[in-house]
Amino acid sequence: MLARWETNGDSLKLVRRDSPGHRTSITVRGDSIGCGFAIIAGPCAVESRDQDMRAAEVVTACGVKFFRGGEFKPRTSHYAFQGLRDEGLRLLGEVRSKFGLRIVTGVMDAELLPAVAEVADVLQIGSRNMHNYPLLEVAGRSARPILLKRGMSATVQEWLQAAEYVLLAGNAQVVLCERGIRTFETMTRNTLDLAGAVMAQSNTHLPVIVDPSHAVGVADAVPALARAAAASGVDGVMIEVHPAPESALSDGQQALSPEEFRALVPQLRQLADLSGRAKEHS
Amino acid sequence: MLARWETNGDSLKLVRRDSPGHRTSITVRGDSIGCGFAIIAGPCAVESRDQDMRAAEVVTACGVKFFRGGEFKPRTSHYAFQGLRDEGLRLLGEVRSKFGLRIVTGVMDAELLPAVAEVADVLQIGSRNMHNYPLLEVAGRSARPILLKRGMSATVQEWLQAAEYVLLAGNAQVVLCERGIRTFETMTRNTLDLAGAVMAQSNTHLPVIVDPSHAVGVADAVPALARAAAASGVDGVMIEVHPAPESALSDGQQALSPEEFRALVPQLRQLADLSGRAKEHS
Amino acid sequence: MLARWETNGDSLKLVRRDSPGHRTSITVRGDSIGCGFAIIAGPCAVESRDQDMRAAEVVTACGVKFFRGGEFKPRTSHYAFQGLRDEGLRLLGEVRSKFGLRIVTGVMDAELLPAVAEVADVLQIGSRNMHNYPLLEVAGRSARPILLKRGMSATVQEWLQAAEYVLLAGNAQVVLCERGIRTFETMTRNTLDLAGAVMAQSNTHLPVIVDPSHAVGVADAVPALARAAAASGVDGVMIEVHPAPESALSDGQQALSPEEFRALVPQLRQLADLSGRAKEHS
Amino acid sequence: MLARWETNGDSLKLVRRDSPGHRTSITVRGDSIGCGFAIIAGPCAVESRDQDMRAAEVVTACGVKFFRGGEFKPRTSHYAFQGLRDEGLRLLGEVRSKFGLRIVTGVMDAELLPAVAEVADVLQIGSRNMHNYPLLEVAGRSARPILLKRGMSATVQEWLQAAEYVLLAGNAQVVLCERGIRTFETMTRNTLDLAGAVMAQSNTHLPVIVDPSHAVGVADAVPALARAAAASGVDGVMIEVHPAPESALSDGQQALSPEEFRALVPQLRQLADLSGRAKEHS
Repeated sequence: MLARWETNGDSLKLVRRDSPGHRTSITVRGDSIGCGFAIIAGPCAVESRDQDMRAAEVVTACGVKFFRGGEFKPRTSHYAFQGLRDEGLRLLGEVRSKFGLRIVTGVMDAELLPAVAEVADVLQIGSRNMHNYPLLEVAGRSARPILLKRGMSATVQEWLQAAEYVLLAGNAQVVLCERGIRTFETMTRNTLDLAGAVMAQSNTHLPVIVDPSHAVGVADAVPALARAAAASGVDGVMIEVHPAPESALSDGQQALSPEEFRALVPQLRQLADLSGRAKEHS
Repeated sequence: MLARWETNGDSLKLVRRDSPGHRTSITVRGDSIGCGFAIIAGPCAVESRDQDMRAAEVVTACGVKFFRGGEFKPRTSHYAFQGLRDEGLRLLGEVRSKFGLRIVTGVMDAELLPAVAEVADVLQIGSRNMHNYPLLEVAGRSARPILLKRGMSATVQEWLQAAEYVLLAGNAQVVLCERGIRTFETMTRNTLDLAGAVMAQSNTHLPVIVDPSHAVGVADAVPALARAAAASGVDGVMIEVHPAPESALSDGQQALSPEEFRALVPQLRQLADLSGRAKEHS
Repeated sequence: MLARWETNGDSLKLVRRDSPGHRTSITVRGDSIGCGFAIIAGPCAVESRDQDMRAAEVVTACGVKFFRGGEFKPRTSHYAFQGLRDEGLRLLGEVRSKFGLRIVTGVMDAELLPAVAEVADVLQIGSRNMHNYPLLEVAGRSARPILLKRGMSATVQEWLQAAEYVLLAGNAQVVLCERGIRTFETMTRNTLDLAGAVMAQSNTHLPVIVDPSHAVGVADAVPALARAAAASGVDGVMIEVHPAPESALSDGQQALSPEEFRALVPQLRQLADLSGRAKEHS
Repeated sequence: MLARWETNGDSLKLVRRDSPGHRTSITVRGDSIGCGFAIIAGPCAVESRDQDMRAAEVVTACGVKFFRGGEFKPRTSHYAFQGLRDEGLRLLGEVRSKFGLRIVTGVMDAELLPAVAEVADVLQIGSRNMHNYPLLEVAGRSARPILLKRGMSATVQEWLQAAEYVLLAGNAQVVLCERGIRTFETMTRNTLDLAGAVMAQSNTHLPVIVDPSHAVGVADAVPALARAAAASGVDGVMIEVHPAPESALSDGQQALSPEEFRALVPQLRQLADLSGRAKEHS
């Protein structure tokens, strides 16, 4: 499918998938992304010890192994809630040791990476930083896997080229995450480009997951889109769940409640199984 | 969810869903769209008697009841293949009587509607005509169900407002079809807005389906997105299938082969079943 | 510059500009579009005799020769003001005979074209109808010049291909009008693509004008963008002016008041002159 | 005009324009941006001593006081030319001392800022870094003026919010630069949103300029759009000029030749004068 791309293939020589069976999976303490259907869940931002522990309980009870939570929440407006920073990182460390969850959290700046990497199992580079080349290079020298979100107006090709920066700097453990692109539609916060994720997956050996919570921004629509993702054959989803969405300090309108999340997880597993078998036969 | 919309609800008073159980289904000779998961399939354009009959055989053999085929193919460039027109319509009539399939075909112009309606069971208004108000009004006076495609840069709200024109003119049998919106991404022809379809479905009582073939424009990605649609809970899909995609006169690169289509149909049914049961329990 | 286009040049063989001096101008009763800088002005929609006559007085007093006014106003919502239709057409005829203005008004449907062409000097095909091929073909058989607006999500190439339909049907008098494209920006109604108009102009022999009023939707910004258009070297502007914008029945927020319009017109002429001399020397 | 914005005005309290006369201008060694029409010109990237000196000669000979040149060129693909880095910075220092030009150059990373600030008179934060909050905060503590480019998919409001970060950190000398937004149009690299620049200017006291070279990506169209910008009343333009565009290592297709640039500069001054007087009388 690479023939559709305008640039020569050399700009993607490390991320490119060379044959149908060429797939990379990322394993963190025995659990993997890229082999089976991965679920990463947790609150948008770490707000308090109580919120964090209750979210971790919900996630653990569903058999989910990867916990997401922002210790620092980049915001378009300086005046919005920005996260707990150091205290947030400390709480994520507590979740890690108490529940044994694998921690996925964002890194905003090259200088902060070492401190975050002490707690995080997977370092997330957010959509606003997909073109932050100094950060991509530092991430490329880290021993931690990187979850690279697609920029909100990045093409699939540019997203893969950003991953190429990380691989070229020495880190081959990269998970790609589609989180919605910016369009004229205003009913959803962004437009989930599931087709873009499917196209990315067929062109790279790296795992590709989607984040319906950030893409859509409306909790009521998240289960439908998570089910869609599971059936599409992508490698996983990242979902926001909050013990009390109505009182969340950021993005509460897109977080699932514990009940909604508990209902959804087994459905995703069934759909992913069915879809996985479908792909084998097609 | 209507509260997210900027205009007052009165502009959508006929299409609006008033309660969770308020759902309309369209029935054509015993088969329905909007009750269960509907599959509409066939070639992009009717090209020849042989192509048409072979496509109808494939569709029928899979238990699919709705056959799509363009008798006239609107094209951005005047110099591209434009369809067989009258001869195409005659061939669709033959498919209808020989295979008992329900015919879905496009109507481009108010003047042509009566002739098309003699053969077609469902009249499709294409994305380029979503804002063609005279055509919407004539469609609203027709006895045939209308399949209304979303304009390629229409918001969900504008799409529902276009449906409101049809209902207001007297025709309550409208199926909405999302077929990709125009974005900056170039790897796919358009961006399938599955979230937009889900949001539309939760705001209207009319059935909402998606057309992954036109949205993506790459046959390899169509099964993944059709499976996604089935799992998302929308009311159906419209899929292009061609007896020999490599020799199609229009859009061959997006049509499934008979083998691909035969593998896909049972998967869609399983996924839609699973998703339907999931929705009941959520 | 045609080399940048993906399709072969044959899809634009009639609209293509073959040499730097290859330019077409449209002349209506001694006044032209495409030779010098044309100004078309008037209200968005004809609302009443009084409004129409007062607008025509303002336009005439500024030495402007082309009067725009919608006798029928296509609206996304059926419930918005839709224009006066037949009565509007009659009032435009009165403006034509009383003030000697050249009338530019929209035609929505092939069937209505003959009636509109009896009053209108220039027939406008709106952005919602740029892909309405039956209408383009009927327009191509008319003796009236056609003003073809760019679709709100049409590429420049598609816009020129739509013009090709008109020329191919026999009408070589086409003016192209850019009126804003749909983007994610919400502060303006659409995004005026002045660069697209400039690119269109360098690739076709047809005149290219812009409509800043519809593009921006905010009257305060219209003079700045009209001045920009005049300086860019495009062939003209279409501007909304209303005797009392605050009481307009449609799009009042984007119409200039008589005072604003009177101040703007001489500025546009000076800037266009200066820019025209600049082009000669570059 | 702020009433059109969705958020409360507090998120923009430092950048907001409070009254018609509330305007900030940035002065660098006696020359200003924000008072009169500013021209910033130079090559996309510093490639060699010879290229740099010849470009500086052309710029100086036209009476232009601000010289742009990238010492480091961020690129979507790692494999494209990335700039001379330290050597580029040294050459810019030489241009500064030899020609007395004010240097505008990009800073990619918070760590690099002090070194760049030793040579640069104005620090540019590129579109890919508009959401790089750590960099915005470091820029806010710098004594140098900041030229903040709009992100390629940022709304005008988000762009102003990014400037708010810089002002809040203590640096009130910010110039805003529109450089094209990402849309579906493919004939130009991006879509120059001149209306967005005009809207920004009417809502902030900071100077607002535009960069037609990056926005359009086609040198032939740059003079027309620069003239448009001058007539629109924005505070300046940033233009690429290269002594030999056909041999440029990056973005040569969008750079003006010395002859084109020499013809353009006096036109821009005339148009800006004319437009300035027009604004006073409106």
